[in-house]
Amino acid sequence: MRNILILGAGRSASSLIHYLITHADQQEWRVTVADRELANAQALVHEGPEVAEAVALDATDPAARAALIARHDLVISMLPAFMHMDVLKDCLRLHKHVITPSYVPDALWPMDSDLKAAGIVVLNEMGLDPGIDHMSAMRILDRIRREGGRMEAFESYCGGLVAPESDDNPWGYKFSWNPRNVILAGQGGSAKYIRDGITKYIPYHKLFQQTVQVEVPGFGAFDGYANRDSLKYRSHYGIDEIPTLLRGTLRKAGYCAAWDAFVQLGCTDDGFAMELDEHATWTDYLEAFLPHDPARDTRANLAHYLGLDPHGAVMAKLDWLGLFGNGRIGVSGRSPAATLQHLLEQKWKLGADDKDLVVMWHRFRYTVEGQHQEVHASLAVTGHDRVHTAMARTVGLPIAMACKLVLNQHIQETGVLLPLKAYIYDPILDELEKHGVRFVETEVEA
Amino acid sequence: MRNILILGAGRSASSLIHYLITHADQQEWRVTVADRELANAQALVHEGPEVAEAVALDATDPAARAALIARHDLVISMLPAFMHMDVLKDCLRLHKHVITPSYVPDALWPMDSDLKAAGIVVLNEMGLDPGIDHMSAMRILDRIRREGGRMEAFESYCGGLVAPESDDNPWGYKFSWNPRNVILAGQGGSAKYIRDGITKYIPYHKLFQQTVQVEVPGFGAFDGYANRDSLKYRSHYGIDEIPTLLRGTLRKAGYCAAWDAFVQLGCTDDGFAMELDEHATWTDYLEAFLPHDPARDTRANLAHYLGLDPHGAVMAKLDWLGLFGNGRIGVSGRSPAATLQHLLEQKWKLGADDKDLVVMWHRFRYTVEGQHQEVHASLAVTGHDRVHTAMARTVGLPIAMACKLVLNQHIQETGVLLPLKAYIYDPILDELEKHGVRFVETEVEA
Repeated sequence: MRNILILGAGRSASSLIHYLITHADQQEWRVTVADRELANAQALVHEGPEVAEAVALDATDPAARAALIARHDLVISMLPAFMHMDVLKDCLRLHKHVITPSYVPDALWPMDSDLKAAGIVVLNEMGLDPGIDHMSAMRILDRIRREGGRMEAFESYCGGLVAPESDDNPWGYKFSWNPRNVILAGQGGSAKYIRDGITKYIPYHKLFQQTVQVEVPGFGAFDGYANRDSLKYRSHYGIDEIPTLLRGTLRKAGYCAAWDAFVQLGCTDDGFAMELDEHATWTDYLEAFLPHDPARDTRANLAHYLGLDPHGAVMAKLDWLGLFGNGRIGVSGRSPAATLQHLLEQKWKLGADDKDLVVMWHRFRYTVEGQHQEVHASLAVTGHDRVHTAMARTVGLPIAMACKLVLNQHIQETGVLLPLKAYIYDPILDELEKHGVRFVETEVEA
Repeated sequence: MRNILILGAGRSASSLIHYLITHADQQEWRVTVADRELANAQALVHEGPEVAEAVALDATDPAARAALIARHDLVISMLPAFMHMDVLKDCLRLHKHVITPSYVPDALWPMDSDLKAAGIVVLNEMGLDPGIDHMSAMRILDRIRREGGRMEAFESYCGGLVAPESDDNPWGYKFSWNPRNVILAGQGGSAKYIRDGITKYIPYHKLFQQTVQVEVPGFGAFDGYANRDSLKYRSHYGIDEIPTLLRGTLRKAGYCAAWDAFVQLGCTDDGFAMELDEHATWTDYLEAFLPHDPARDTRANLAHYLGLDPHGAVMAKLDWLGLFGNGRIGVSGRSPAATLQHLLEQKWKLGADDKDLVVMWHRFRYTVEGQHQEVHASLAVTGHDRVHTAMARTVGLPIAMACKLVLNQHIQETGVLLPLKAYIYDPILDELEKHGVRFVETEVEA
């Protein structure tokens, strides 16, 4: 019997836990789900204690955390990123393998040699993005290399969206993951990418203007905006010399132009508390960001200030949010971003019968024997229901499948690992296909 | 004999030191000028040791700093803001009075009761801005209050610029103080002001677009852009209920629209090192911020991207900087802001015969017995030469004059002080007038 501990039973853990429980008997697994709120963990565990158990854990309590980790063979950390290092240090001390969907923390690399010496596997970036993006890209990049291809461009976009059948608002967006991250997306520095050998930078206030149009077969048109650092994986992917490299995020076509209105106004600033009282309306909120213009009402002032067509698609999206009415905000003392989040959490809520959508799209351009080639690979996954969302399935299933690789000694390396090699990505991508997580490749006339 | 210590002999200390030495005999002062570079201090001290002495001091060396402070009665800190607290703690321990031209550090207020108990005066914000702005505004605000006026609006702008006779570039700007602060001006959060009772916020990327036109009699037209926090002095000034309050910075008319091109491109970002090699040209620098556009050259791409008239005033200013030629940058591995600073330090250098200009402009709107009144007060000071610049004179002279107030027991209060009361601002503003630092008031038809 091998004991698996899942730390954190948030909404992206549902499909992970379901898979582990379903495979527990065959794999001789016993599963513990720990969450600060016992009810969160219990909601995802419907089996008897011989298969799975829900426990309450305050993961910031070092003694309780270590005691629980000590009783397991493998730890899956679904905790917020800032808590990962504490767990990783425990696992090094207690000699436990780890799988996480999170980016490798900078502080983890210096622990690599100790982890290797202890024979511990820490498999990071095993979710959707990062995760499936790495695996699907590397499979095609490795194939192109085997064929003698020389990479000219790699572009990769991913988005967590709403399924077409549940898409009933003009933004084409509902929250399928952390709303705060959606509001603050792109902040914290210029985005960086390479185009034809030139390293390019996009400041935040231009990010949602400099979008790329992406067409995903069967799912329509999307806007792609650049991620913070597209160049981070150049070496990991073995494409240090590639002239064009861009990674980005997908939104439904038209979303970015409308979101840019909030960026331009300053509504996404999270750095100060607004001076609005508890009776303030959404019009008061907007007026705080608009120049004084006694000749125009708030809506006309905004359209004029941002150079928007008063009858255009951007203003229609703002209208739909109810920003220009006398609706009360209902919260006060928050930042512009947090105040806006309060509205969007009401308007962009994924309803009880709504399904979400995960879309990923890669474009590879390369030459083989002087011939230009272009391949697109796209993935579109629709959620089953509000528990087993597309987001939960694409984040959780690769992690769950990786448990088999780790616990069945399929992974020969130790230390800090990413899913970049065929012995990891092949079995996982193959099994994902059986779960409907399948990339469609298209060769394009170059 | 009273011993005065000046910490820091940078370019804003020249007129301060000159005044202290000139008045040393009459006031029974002995002056010590300390700088990390002995030559800096020596350059400003031309007297015998009975009057003034130049010494070398590494102000980050606690023992050396405290030993020097211990031998004096009054310390004037002209050090960078981050070093102030160390000096202030020494002065509390050693019971020495302090005058600084810097903003009150947040960490100083908790020391106020200890300073009071020790009978120590710490007179802050005694330079130009902050300094002369407080004194000149308070003198008029107090007068309006005495007349029974009710304040409706207070707007106040200040700028360190180049004198008309030395203004030979299309930007109307040369550096008379820290270039880095000019490049990074406005960063670090939204600017905040009040207009007709509504608190308004301007994000950085809109700051140089939302300017106010200011006309200073005899000195022409200026752009004013909002400072970070206009509301900070509401209570200090006794105008908590004022409906309109804005403090800002002046540049020559047309400057802000051109500077905004750098802001929009992302050239003022100081957060990352650019990937440009040592042979890179200014065209390469600009291309890093521009979208890929094979149909246009760099200049046309930039004008198109930012919506600028290729033959307009903004592009002419960029042309004058030589940005579109094949000129080598000459430095590498720096941030966008630091790279741009390298160019501007060459182009905007105050020449040997150039004179600088300090401009300050206040507008007061108020009612007296139901009658609307409007008063403007403007100050324009031209530098004498490259040592006794307008900046050095307006920063240094009020501090020097305040030494008389402190050492002659004219200041009855102790602890953390700002120059907001008549017993401080009256003698200093009166003496400044004798040195040509004189406000001109105009009553405007309301």
